[in-house]
Amino acid sequence: MMSRLCQTLWLCAPARAKYFAVQYTPNVRCKVPTTEAPQSDGLQRLLPISVLTISMNKVSEGVNDNKLSIAYYREKTEELGKAVLHLTAVEISLDVDADRDGVVEKNNPNKGSWKWGPSGHGAILLVNCDSESTYMKKVDSSTDKVTKVSDLLDMSRMVLRTNGPAELPQGYKLALQISQSDGESIRVFKKRKPEGAMKSLHKIFSMFVKEFPLVLGNDVLSQEVPYVGGSNEVDFFVEGLRFPDKDFGGLVTINLSLLEPSAQDFPETPIFTDKVVFRVAPWIMTPNTLKPVEVFVCSTSDNNKFLKEIKALVEGSGYKLNICKEYMNRGDRWMQDELEFGYIDAPHQHFPVVLDSPRDGKLQNFPYEVLLGPDFGYVTRMASDEKVTSLDSFGNLEVSPPVTVNGRAYPLGRIIIGVAFPTTSQGRNMTKVVQDFLWAQKVQQPIALYSDWLVVGHVDEFMTFVPAPDRKGFRLLLASPDAGYKLFHRLQNEGYGKAKQFDGKKHEITLDELLSDKALRAENLYVQNCIDWNRDVLKRELGLDDEDIIDLPILFKILEDNRAAAYYPDMVNMIVLGNKLGIPKPFGPKVNGRCALEAEMCSLMVPLGLSCTFIDDFASYHKLLGEVHCGSNVRREPFKTKWWSLEL
Amino acid sequence: MMSRLCQTLWLCAPARAKYFAVQYTPNVRCKVPTTEAPQSDGLQRLLPISVLTISMNKVSEGVNDNKLSIAYYREKTEELGKAVLHLTAVEISLDVDADRDGVVEKNNPNKGSWKWGPSGHGAILLVNCDSESTYMKKVDSSTDKVTKVSDLLDMSRMVLRTNGPAELPQGYKLALQISQSDGESIRVFKKRKPEGAMKSLHKIFSMFVKEFPLVLGNDVLSQEVPYVGGSNEVDFFVEGLRFPDKDFGGLVTINLSLLEPSAQDFPETPIFTDKVVFRVAPWIMTPNTLKPVEVFVCSTSDNNKFLKEIKALVEGSGYKLNICKEYMNRGDRWMQDELEFGYIDAPHQHFPVVLDSPRDGKLQNFPYEVLLGPDFGYVTRMASDEKVTSLDSFGNLEVSPPVTVNGRAYPLGRIIIGVAFPTTSQGRNMTKVVQDFLWAQKVQQPIALYSDWLVVGHVDEFMTFVPAPDRKGFRLLLASPDAGYKLFHRLQNEGYGKAKQFDGKKHEITLDELLSDKALRAENLYVQNCIDWNRDVLKRELGLDDEDIIDLPILFKILEDNRAAAYYPDMVNMIVLGNKLGIPKPFGPKVNGRCALEAEMCSLMVPLGLSCTFIDDFASYHKLLGEVHCGSNVRREPFKTKWWSLEL
Repeated sequence: MMSRLCQTLWLCAPARAKYFAVQYTPNVRCKVPTTEAPQSDGLQRLLPISVLTISMNKVSEGVNDNKLSIAYYREKTEELGKAVLHLTAVEISLDVDADRDGVVEKNNPNKGSWKWGPSGHGAILLVNCDSESTYMKKVDSSTDKVTKVSDLLDMSRMVLRTNGPAELPQGYKLALQISQSDGESIRVFKKRKPEGAMKSLHKIFSMFVKEFPLVLGNDVLSQEVPYVGGSNEVDFFVEGLRFPDKDFGGLVTINLSLLEPSAQDFPETPIFTDKVVFRVAPWIMTPNTLKPVEVFVCSTSDNNKFLKEIKALVEGSGYKLNICKEYMNRGDRWMQDELEFGYIDAPHQHFPVVLDSPRDGKLQNFPYEVLLGPDFGYVTRMASDEKVTSLDSFGNLEVSPPVTVNGRAYPLGRIIIGVAFPTTSQGRNMTKVVQDFLWAQKVQQPIALYSDWLVVGHVDEFMTFVPAPDRKGFRLLLASPDAGYKLFHRLQNEGYGKAKQFDGKKHEITLDELLSDKALRAENLYVQNCIDWNRDVLKRELGLDDEDIIDLPILFKILEDNRAAAYYPDMVNMIVLGNKLGIPKPFGPKVNGRCALEAEMCSLMVPLGLSCTFIDDFASYHKLLGEVHCGSNVRREPFKTKWWSLEL
Repeated sequence: MMSRLCQTLWLCAPARAKYFAVQYTPNVRCKVPTTEAPQSDGLQRLLPISVLTISMNKVSEGVNDNKLSIAYYREKTEELGKAVLHLTAVEISLDVDADRDGVVEKNNPNKGSWKWGPSGHGAILLVNCDSESTYMKKVDSSTDKVTKVSDLLDMSRMVLRTNGPAELPQGYKLALQISQSDGESIRVFKKRKPEGAMKSLHKIFSMFVKEFPLVLGNDVLSQEVPYVGGSNEVDFFVEGLRFPDKDFGGLVTINLSLLEPSAQDFPETPIFTDKVVFRVAPWIMTPNTLKPVEVFVCSTSDNNKFLKEIKALVEGSGYKLNICKEYMNRGDRWMQDELEFGYIDAPHQHFPVVLDSPRDGKLQNFPYEVLLGPDFGYVTRMASDEKVTSLDSFGNLEVSPPVTVNGRAYPLGRIIIGVAFPTTSQGRNMTKVVQDFLWAQKVQQPIALYSDWLVVGHVDEFMTFVPAPDRKGFRLLLASPDAGYKLFHRLQNEGYGKAKQFDGKKHEITLDELLSDKALRAENLYVQNCIDWNRDVLKRELGLDDEDIIDLPILFKILEDNRAAAYYPDMVNMIVLGNKLGIPKPFGPKVNGRCALEAEMCSLMVPLGLSCTFIDDFASYHKLLGEVHCGSNVRREPFKTKWWSLEL
């Protein structure tokens, strides 16, 4: 290693030595920081603090090809003896992409630590949670082998750079080490062959595995690595095994040591250690304001009309529609609830990752069996001793667009979940394992709303975000019974009291009847209270003004356990595809032949440049207590903002 | 609460309303931020964004004693109707000592968050880990009762300040809430009686407990608290239950909500929430540079001479000596190893806290049975499925004096522990539960040294810190076989080759013999390598220069498993009491009647203003592989620097 060596002269000096003189070969540099100038005869006074600082300006061509000798003198003419240091200079550096540009630079001074922010540093690791195979697939990180060349792209390259003589001095060796806890978080593979020899190997599986042997992992915390003479690079590939979570902050350290042999059978001792630090990339969610890539819905025996309409919207908007067939969904239509799309990102690679909910309805195999694949990752959290409730469905897991709150920026937005009020002693909650996972990702600090007032209990039943050209770039849409009653009162005043909500359907009811239903009014006052609470939390935690919020005319009804559900199709539970909204068709009272609820909705959305398509989900979703959003899912493009540039 | 109310006029307006006018009682303030100026007739145009911002400049004297009415107009002369708001202004504030001056100020704007540093803020909580009783004692936090007045001093005061009418409007109430996880970390007690009525109650236990009922805890996450009319304060006392650890960052939140009744049987909804945040104080260790308070040693059947000498040193230095008697220590003399003294600190209270080691030798009952008491806390960590080794003894747990490393200050020093090298696949380690605890305290970020090369495996076998008047205020002392050989060679050269190490003892050996023992030399070269590794780590992690380190002439011997122990009494394993050092008597070769090792030690220490007392621990400690430090423990004064002033 090209570091400096400090030699305390006093300890090696013969007894009675009073002066010393130093001589060395041309490649050696030596500094004696005594307070006195050297004597005229080149001798220096030996003091207890005399320390030689020795370095070399060139790596050695052979072992011990440089020397430094110290002659000790009692008096200036009486030499007592000579100490000779045999020096071998070797350059050793364990390198990673600490400056996050996708290239493994040489010996970055910051490689041993990790710092957030645009002027931060520190290498990044992905959890290798995709599957290179599509047949008999499993998550790549579940095996300790490299099975395909493409798998290496999901790992972080690490390079051992050495420069020195053909061999290390007798008995010296290099070794990589990790701690036991890091052994649960990473694996390291080594590339056996130099670049040239590799090219013919890509075809043959068994040979390939041998070309990338496991160096470090859970069962191998330390391993010798070869020293190759001359100027040389050995490639390693580091694989992340687990996401940040309650018990794992995300940082891992890999050490490289040069070990010195000891006399007899004593263990070797390291005389130089280099260290690199990685942070495992967090799982990141994508808000409605990001560009869609593909849409997922289920096909069931009874949702043909819905499918047709959603297909027209999605494909008409230019996005890909994926239909999960009945043999896979087994009648479970709640595509929103079984999974959440997100992604992981590093300077060298990024890909989508699905978070599989502990909900586990009949759609439970879909995320693993259909979504997992090459460059499509999979992660889940299982509730062990906790009860899974409806609040664990991912209609109850959303994310805001980027916001700034009291000067603090959240450039990737904030995760939003629904839980029980702390004021109620009993209540349903999202499982702790999932909450812990979400909080541990750190870059989209979650907000807990109160959603347990709803029968189904999902935040998407009363809120969503749509893009907007002005202000903060979005609006928060909230369901609002007050807005609903206001609209209906206006219509009544305008003489449309006989117009019917649910016109032509079984439960049709005139506005006059609806507005005179005191129980319904009381229920909606309570619901408005619940939503207002969430409105306050959202304003505070997202830094919103009233002008950033739009109240949608939506009424609720209390069903079982004093819990609520949308009375007519819940327009806020929409799918957002760029500036196109797919909104549950509300079947509101008709005014001049047009649904007044649709008209109101359009009048609120169109000024923002958004177009409204109303989709009939009445029989196949609404009656089952869900709507368009519950029955669909959208994979979106990742943020352009890099998570490591956040100031945390 | 004296917050602002925003009323969206549009939602309450009758249909067809185009103008509105506002009237209100004198204590009401109202702002209509429309873009237009009011019309000449006092009417304003009703716009979808018309929002009234309403506040009150005085608390109410009665329920609904203020009103605000909004008259809506279709045309300027055609009034459509009136909406009337009945207003009750109540001032509500949940208060803590967020500015850390020992006083609970009113409504600190920062009370809801926590920030490190001298300009930081946020209230502080102590783990109530002492015992107010000395008889049948247990740690106070193990019961959910307040048993003595003095116990309240260990808790943090929290005040509910209200100002308003004699009663809240019908059905409204106040409630405190905590989350489930915070329920594991804190309890809240309420003071039932106002100050005056309290005074006579101090004597009677059963009455006392009733006067401070439990309000919040693990089984009560939410509870109504009384509203008392007029200007009023209700005192609460918050008790910390657990130290920061791997699964607990140290922050807890208490919410106060004003709950609004709902129609029918719906749950109440909060319409105002105040929030306070506490951080649980960390456990802090005290380095050798802090002033001693008392010294602890064990009395055994064979250590009379040692006791006499240590007594002379400790009491001669003006400190208190506590001798743990045989019935308690049952022959276990390793007072250093069973426990570590530390303390916890808040603006309102501080006291020492003993960390009980999972070692659990025959001294295991001493920390709980003898040390725990009023204002003397106790904490321990039990290893569940891990093997406890000799590295779990707290001779292997030390702390440096304050240091600054590359510009980063550690004003409370850094904890130092010894572990196995990562290069060895097998090795002993300190248990994870203790390591996790130490790291989680955060304010003395630990350093892991390599101590597994020693038979006993404790860092105090090769290092200690002594105060110094210059440089960084201390020196690091390191055992140094090189320094030992250098001294012995000099003595040999000066003609003392026949002087004997261990003179007069069974294993006496001349310097000539010792210096010709090649196996011993090889062993000590290996030991020097091991110490040099630790020296490099200490230099780097504590920001030390070579001039901050003093090498003590100490030789080691390899015993079992290639592991080492001190050859003669290990002088670095000393007790540091201010500027007085109690050093194991080394029984070195005599030169002119004086022990050369003692002379060398004095020549190194005396220039720093330190005095050396050599204590004979040969038979009773050294032969059992320990020395003075292993056999003693010192409780010291806390740092003057407050932990919350650290910039973390």
